[in-house]
Amino acid sequence: MTIQAPQENAVTAMMLGIAGVGLIGGSIAAAARSRGIASRIIGFGRSEQRLAAAVEAGLIDAFSTDYAACAEVELFVSCLPVDRIVESVRQASTFMPPGSIATDAGSTKSAICEQLKGITRPDVTFVGSHPLAGSEQQGFEHADAGLFEGRLCVLTPSGREPAGVVQRLAAFWEGLGCRTVSQSPEEHDKILARTSHVPHVAASAVARLIQSGDLPFAAGGFRDTTRIAAGDPDLWTSILRANRHAIALELGRVIQSCEAFRDALQRGDYESIRRLLAEGKEIRDQFDRLP
Amino acid sequence: MTIQAPQENAVTAMMLGIAGVGLIGGSIAAAARSRGIASRIIGFGRSEQRLAAAVEAGLIDAFSTDYAACAEVELFVSCLPVDRIVESVRQASTFMPPGSIATDAGSTKSAICEQLKGITRPDVTFVGSHPLAGSEQQGFEHADAGLFEGRLCVLTPSGREPAGVVQRLAAFWEGLGCRTVSQSPEEHDKILARTSHVPHVAASAVARLIQSGDLPFAAGGFRDTTRIAAGDPDLWTSILRANRHAIALELGRVIQSCEAFRDALQRGDYESIRRLLAEGKEIRDQFDRLP
Repeated sequence: MTIQAPQENAVTAMMLGIAGVGLIGGSIAAAARSRGIASRIIGFGRSEQRLAAAVEAGLIDAFSTDYAACAEVELFVSCLPVDRIVESVRQASTFMPPGSIATDAGSTKSAICEQLKGITRPDVTFVGSHPLAGSEQQGFEHADAGLFEGRLCVLTPSGREPAGVVQRLAAFWEGLGCRTVSQSPEEHDKILARTSHVPHVAASAVARLIQSGDLPFAAGGFRDTTRIAAGDPDLWTSILRANRHAIALELGRVIQSCEAFRDALQRGDYESIRRLLAEGKEIRDQFDRLP
Repeated sequence: MTIQAPQENAVTAMMLGIAGVGLIGGSIAAAARSRGIASRIIGFGRSEQRLAAAVEAGLIDAFSTDYAACAEVELFVSCLPVDRIVESVRQASTFMPPGSIATDAGSTKSAICEQLKGITRPDVTFVGSHPLAGSEQQGFEHADAGLFEGRLCVLTPSGREPAGVVQRLAAFWEGLGCRTVSQSPEEHDKILARTSHVPHVAASAVARLIQSGDLPFAAGGFRDTTRIAAGDPDLWTSILRANRHAIALELGRVIQSCEAFRDALQRGDYESIRRLLAEGKEIRDQFDRLP
């Protein structure tokens, strides 16, 4: 696995189209503007009121609810929920100029890349992206030009892209401050099931255990363990749906792990408890030691 | 449930004994000193070297590895791991002066309070305490005089304490910045199983899912969800052991919750997924709205 470091000033400023000007789309706009990557940014979405507010906030230059406004967009990034990405790319690519690139920022890749195979014009290329950045907050009001600094962005090319396309897209993300890596959509989805999607389900399951009267007794451990459970249920339902097979499989392994803890507690096997805890700590300590 | 607010200057400075001068014991020492609650602080433990370093760091005034040095200690706080609290209180109380109080800072209460019933002298009173503060860090080097500010401290009196004892102990914790509440050891342990002990097991189970090659793809959600999995395995084995029945029961409910997610994913029932996520979010949002 080769991870590319972020680059400064390596990208010519270009016309950017962003569908879904929320936390991620707004942060891409803010970062692209502050780093001189975008000559002009057009926001797309359903709510004229929200898009007008994003123009007012200085995040985007113009907006449209009609993808016909993509006629000069050189790079289109769909930051919509995963269940709306395919349709937005399909529509936008109809209008985009020859040689332009479409991508996304969705947390799942296999279904999206599969569905977009061959539905864009031959002279417009879609390559999936997933910048590993975000928060449980929503809305462009939380947009942050520094959100991508030092974060990894996964690209999922098919290998059949025209020469230079994947490099141009990687240079865009690196220009926003990301490190980049390419892998297959399937590999991405398996790994993200373990690092992101199953942790989300576990956080939700832990939160669901709590009764209202317990809350004053919840402290820092509960706060951190369940933070992501505050995420938008609609957004996360679409993520879990789009990667359901890998998630069901990995969730089964977490269930087995919890059962191993429970069985050891019930039979008073504290040496096994200690070993299970030590294995979890070893992984977590490895994570903390990452550069 | 009546929660008492923290008090300033309500406690006469007293001779304090602290067994286990680590993160919690060291923070109690730092807070007691900075708030003028301690006239003198003696640290107890097994390692003369570590205790001497804590004197050097200005956290405690003196140290001993022999509880005979408790002859003038008015309040003894055992901050040892839960499996060593009973023995330390038993020994210290042999030497403490008439009218003095012993307590602890353990994360479980039923077993400790049960075992300490009637083993201290009649003129020395033990009352269990659990300040809901801490971190995955260890050692007095991380001690923080502000660790208890605004945190809840649970007291678990038996109801048979001499007049004024529970009030004096509550005033001590309130003097460190805590809010205080009294409840039975059993009620405490049931609630903490849900708010602290089972979240710890879940964090560990999520961390155990990760393979080394996955780590570069782990981001903020993984970091927060698994933070407490970095805790000391020996310390947590003794906590899980001391509250094993309640934890096994509540862990079973988390397993059921994860199974409900998995089953809904497998049968494509996304309305149930959305409802499960919304229930978790509702609890988590309630937590964020707490004053």
